[in-house]
Amino acid sequence: MATGGGSTVGQVITCKAAVAYRAGEPLSVEDIRVAPPNPGEVRVKITHTSICHTDLYFWLGQDKYRIFPRILGHEGAGIVESVGQGVTSVQPGDHVIPAWQAECGKCFHCKAGKSNICDVFLHHFEKGVMPLDKKTRFSTMDGNPIYHFFGTSTFSQYTVLDEACCAKVNPKAPLEKICLLGCGVATGIGSAWRIGKVSPGSSVAVFGLGTVGLAVVEGAKTAGASQIIGIDRKPEKLHLAKEQFGLTDTINPKEVSKPVEQVIADMTNGGVWYGFDCTGKVEVIYSALESTQKAGGVSVIVGLVPSTEKVSFHPEELLFGRTWTSGLFGGFKGRTDLPLLVEKFLDGTINLDHYITHNLPFSKINEGFQLLQEAKCLRAVLYTDKL
Amino acid sequence: MATGGGSTVGQVITCKAAVAYRAGEPLSVEDIRVAPPNPGEVRVKITHTSICHTDLYFWLGQDKYRIFPRILGHEGAGIVESVGQGVTSVQPGDHVIPAWQAECGKCFHCKAGKSNICDVFLHHFEKGVMPLDKKTRFSTMDGNPIYHFFGTSTFSQYTVLDEACCAKVNPKAPLEKICLLGCGVATGIGSAWRIGKVSPGSSVAVFGLGTVGLAVVEGAKTAGASQIIGIDRKPEKLHLAKEQFGLTDTINPKEVSKPVEQVIADMTNGGVWYGFDCTGKVEVIYSALESTQKAGGVSVIVGLVPSTEKVSFHPEELLFGRTWTSGLFGGFKGRTDLPLLVEKFLDGTINLDHYITHNLPFSKINEGFQLLQEAKCLRAVLYTDKL
Ligand SMILES: NC(=O)c1ccc[n+]([C@@H]2O[C@H](COP(=O)([O-])OP(=O)(O)OC[C@H]3O[C@@H](n4cnc5c(N)ncnc54)[C@H](O)[C@@H]3O)[C@@H](O)[C@H]2O)c1
Ligand SMILES: NC(=O)c1ccc[n+]([C@@H]2O[C@H](COP(=O)([O-])OP(=O)(O)OC[C@H]3O[C@@H](n4cnc5c(N)ncnc54)[C@H](O)[C@@H]3O)[C@@H](O)[C@H]2O)c1
Ligand SMILES: [Zn+2]
Ligand SMILES: [Zn+2]
Ligand SMILES: [Zn+2]
Ligand SMILES: [Zn+2]
Repeated sequence: MATGGGSTVGQVITCKAAVAYRAGEPLSVEDIRVAPPNPGEVRVKITHTSICHTDLYFWLGQDKYRIFPRILGHEGAGIVESVGQGVTSVQPGDHVIPAWQAECGKCFHCKAGKSNICDVFLHHFEKGVMPLDKKTRFSTMDGNPIYHFFGTSTFSQYTVLDEACCAKVNPKAPLEKICLLGCGVATGIGSAWRIGKVSPGSSVAVFGLGTVGLAVVEGAKTAGASQIIGIDRKPEKLHLAKEQFGLTDTINPKEVSKPVEQVIADMTNGGVWYGFDCTGKVEVIYSALESTQKAGGVSVIVGLVPSTEKVSFHPEELLFGRTWTSGLFGGFKGRTDLPLLVEKFLDGTINLDHYITHNLPFSKINEGFQLLQEAKCLRAVLYTDKL
Repeated sequence: MATGGGSTVGQVITCKAAVAYRAGEPLSVEDIRVAPPNPGEVRVKITHTSICHTDLYFWLGQDKYRIFPRILGHEGAGIVESVGQGVTSVQPGDHVIPAWQAECGKCFHCKAGKSNICDVFLHHFEKGVMPLDKKTRFSTMDGNPIYHFFGTSTFSQYTVLDEACCAKVNPKAPLEKICLLGCGVATGIGSAWRIGKVSPGSSVAVFGLGTVGLAVVEGAKTAGASQIIGIDRKPEKLHLAKEQFGLTDTINPKEVSKPVEQVIADMTNGGVWYGFDCTGKVEVIYSALESTQKAGGVSVIVGLVPSTEKVSFHPEELLFGRTWTSGLFGGFKGRTDLPLLVEKFLDGTINLDHYITHNLPFSKINEGFQLLQEAKCLRAVLYTDKL
């Protein structure tokens, strides 16, 4: 039996959610039903959620699973409403960030400790159902299933999480800001710290200056990089990045006559030590490889590439000792690291305000999607209780 | 002025060398002229040299530079005959291993310390002339230039090295054995230790069980790997590897009905932690990637791929935190590490005997090439003074 403090405990909750019915079509903000948490699950009232480019990727059906109808959203924050049997790490009233990068602590990958990946995440990546019974906790008002996304589905006033996907955080932190740590900002910072392992005094190139790319810039800065080159096709992004995020150099690929990697080579004695793709475009991924030093350079793919596209390269690109790698959620573990990142926000190490360019009522979620698709915002934070 | 102990000092030496005149045509063992060392250069009497698959690669013109006529050979050992002005690290009579992975200690890459690559090597990789004056020290008896290879050209009774390519080693070590440390064995061991960084208790797959692959196996074993799977198309190689090199499992791709990476996944709960390609075949390189754990697996490309071929992959292969890398000479620095590797041979940590399947007189070098091309030998050691 589920336990909680309010009258909704153990009951199906009817609330608003933004449902993606078909790839690329506007989300429908409508009433849905949210079942109570099963054993090992947590039902959370999502107070705030922001939109990440990965939501667009799955909304557009660029993945190979194309699961619909579905409730997207994986960058949110909220308060535990009730918990299912056996849940020990959180209780009703706790402030939490849904951790799409699950951390169960018990599976093959968690135990191996070679990455931050957890088998619960691998399940959610491929399937829109809960791991326990392979069913959904969401349904339309006439009883049809609505699928989950990334184990988080934060584009709903209430969602159900596997306990492995629920990170308890310091309640002093404002939920309307720390929701950003649920994906983009954490991913960027961790990509610099944990995946690329940017070293002090080094040079870095960041391709794509959305929230993820700018957070890579900040991660590289705190790691002590001395030269940080930002690349974007939008002049506004380059301007903002230079003013507020401490880039040392900027390049607009549309305004240079040589390939970007050659411009970078000229600026850096042959290449940067670390290159990051934060666009998910295959040609940029290749550029982010070529822009690094061929002997000892490290290139990190952060962006998500549509499942139908491939990258082709000659292994000589790596022969002199380059490394090509990638990773999810910046290598952070969902439940271990999110509370620590929130503390770093509270002590001022991590700034979140300058990523929030828009605050929108929940009903304007499609506007938020459009802003992001046109690269006209960083993060739009949705207030789920405002309609 | 060059200094040395014998009557040849300062003189042009006429000696035998195996000259590659055209791609894929038998080498011509003939008299050639070797000029005295210029300032910063060392002339070495090569006593023994073995044949590495990389010699075949350049002999066949699979590289994009196709420099001929040329004296190949980069796995040798010998004795310093004379030194050019300003040379301080070796003197006549010293036992040395030509270090194709140069180490000048002064260039951008040496100083950066991010890899083992030295600018002197990068010069030699692309060009068949000495860095000092962009000329050759070898010529035919009628005065035409013969180009250098990898800065070593050990298929000659005498060769000229840049001081950066000359590693002084313990004279107690038999030259007819330690020549193997000049490339193949060191590359394999270092690929496990320094490039892949194999961790204790881990699982490893090695594709291609020539000398380089078998040395990866030995490197992985000394690094504490608990499961080592060897893959080769030659049953003899699999047999030998299991008997003498401590493989735990073997796979012949021709004898399994599933793709090798699936066979490996079944044997290892989803994949090995480290995969090494030691074949240089693009389809094997891809297999060596896919055979690793998708979350936290590391795949190392050791083989050289013909310059016209490419590898194509979906970035999702790396998305969960796989790493794809490569490197030369196992990440070892030419002059710092070769003397230490020789000591490890002397103290028994590194075994060289079981790689030497053939000892041949110099004049039979083409037979050695053929044996290697047909994968019928590990290393054939040529005694350059036997004709
Ligand atoms: N690996 C992970 O764990 C992870 C986590 C979050 C996001 N992502 C991915 O990271 C990427 C960035 O996410 P975001 O939310 O910051 O997206 P965003 O849309 O806010 O930013 C993308 C930026 O790239 C720029 N851009 C697009 N094409 C470009 C090109 N050809 N050259 C240069 N710049 C170009 C855009 O102008 C924009 O500024 C997306 O692909 C997203 O799916 C991955
Ligand atoms: N990165 C470096 O610094 C470095 C140094 C030395 C050698 N190399 C390269 O490493 C590779 C191996 O060198 P080697 O001297 O050990 O060569 P080798 O010819 O002795 O060994 C190659 C082995 O691969 C096996 N093989 C070939 N095709 C195969 C396939 N499709 N599947 C499975 N096995 C297959 C052969 O049977 C053989 O046993 C070559 O490409 C060489 O150029 C690289
Ligand atoms: Zn787990
Ligand atoms: Zn995201
Ligand atoms: Zn150097
Ligand atoms: Zn070699």
